[in-house]
Amino acid sequence: MGTKGEGNRQRIIDAADNLFYRRGYNQTSFQDISDATGIPRGNFYYYFKTKDEILNAVVDARIAELSIMLKQCEVDSDDARERLLMFSNMLEYNRDDVIESGCPIGTLSSELAKDDPALHDKSRQAFILLRSWLKQQFDDLGINDAENLAMDLLAKLQGVTIMGCAFKDAAYIKRSHEEIKDWINTRTLN
Amino acid sequence: MGTKGEGNRQRIIDAADNLFYRRGYNQTSFQDISDATGIPRGNFYYYFKTKDEILNAVVDARIAELSIMLKQCEVDSDDARERLLMFSNMLEYNRDDVIESGCPIGTLSSELAKDDPALHDKSRQAFILLRSWLKQQFDDLGINDAENLAMDLLAKLQGVTIMGCAFKDAAYIKRSHEEIKDWINTRTLN
Repeated sequence: MGTKGEGNRQRIIDAADNLFYRRGYNQTSFQDISDATGIPRGNFYYYFKTKDEILNAVVDARIAELSIMLKQCEVDSDDARERLLMFSNMLEYNRDDVIESGCPIGTLSSELAKDDPALHDKSRQAFILLRSWLKQQFDDLGINDAENLAMDLLAKLQGVTIMGCAFKDAAYIKRSHEEIKDWINTRTLN
Repeated sequence: MGTKGEGNRQRIIDAADNLFYRRGYNQTSFQDISDATGIPRGNFYYYFKTKDEILNAVVDARIAELSIMLKQCEVDSDDARERLLMFSNMLEYNRDDVIESGCPIGTLSSELAKDDPALHDKSRQAFILLRSWLKQQFDDLGINDAENLAMDLLAKLQGVTIMGCAFKDAAYIKRSHEEIKDWINTRTLN
């Protein structure tokens, strides 16, 4: 694929990523993605034959983006506790998006649980990356039960996201973020 | 509406309730509900003109069912702490459903956040009922901050539901439920 082809492919992925997040996977049609990119549906099939293929590419793109963000945390701090705190800051940085549309990973996973098992498996990959990275941070601090703590932290963030979005409540998210940081400190400072 | 009419209306609501939970609101068509009930689509419009109207009736039905469940908790125990523990048991009782399809209230709210604001408002009503009832339990125990604790408990349950469904992990749900019960006891026993 030439440079223009790669550019078009990426534009389709970016537009689909945003639409899957803002409207949901099932509520996004080929036509919606075509409209958002300006790439005619005819050309479009050259890059992706099915919406499932686009979903795979979107999840891969999200994983690549998360990997960069996690690597940046590692660059920014040598202290795994600080890296966990940085990770939890996602909740604040993305507060407006969370209130409007929830978590892109959590809502996609919930939607696809009700759909095709293969798509649900794919959507889970972003959670697997996060769980593995969080486990590594707790491991680095010499803490037992690192995998359980990784799941607990993800569950806390997801729970706050669901309730913050349901009630459109920025103050609730802010308070809960503070409590999550306290929990990270309690679990990691001895 | 005669008895037969009421019966048909209720069958439509029951079928839609199940389909909205198992497939999602947007993935459920009038035809799906017609197929599930055996009520021809022609007759069908006599009861509901739009899918939005069915959604309203489904949320009302879920609220009525939750109200009965909460009243039962009040009949079963005079102790608000025990009632909170009973409430948290939903996670275990519904474990297989949670693993397969998540929480009916949480997933509907997440889906509709990406949709029509009026539908999202409607879906929130079940959370409002639960928050209010949970707040009342903490209030009954003379605990400050009862509304925040009610939100925290809902967020914990939602977070575990999301992760338990994403990873299809019954053992994780069981462990987390024990931790939620510990949290309730810590917050309410002095």
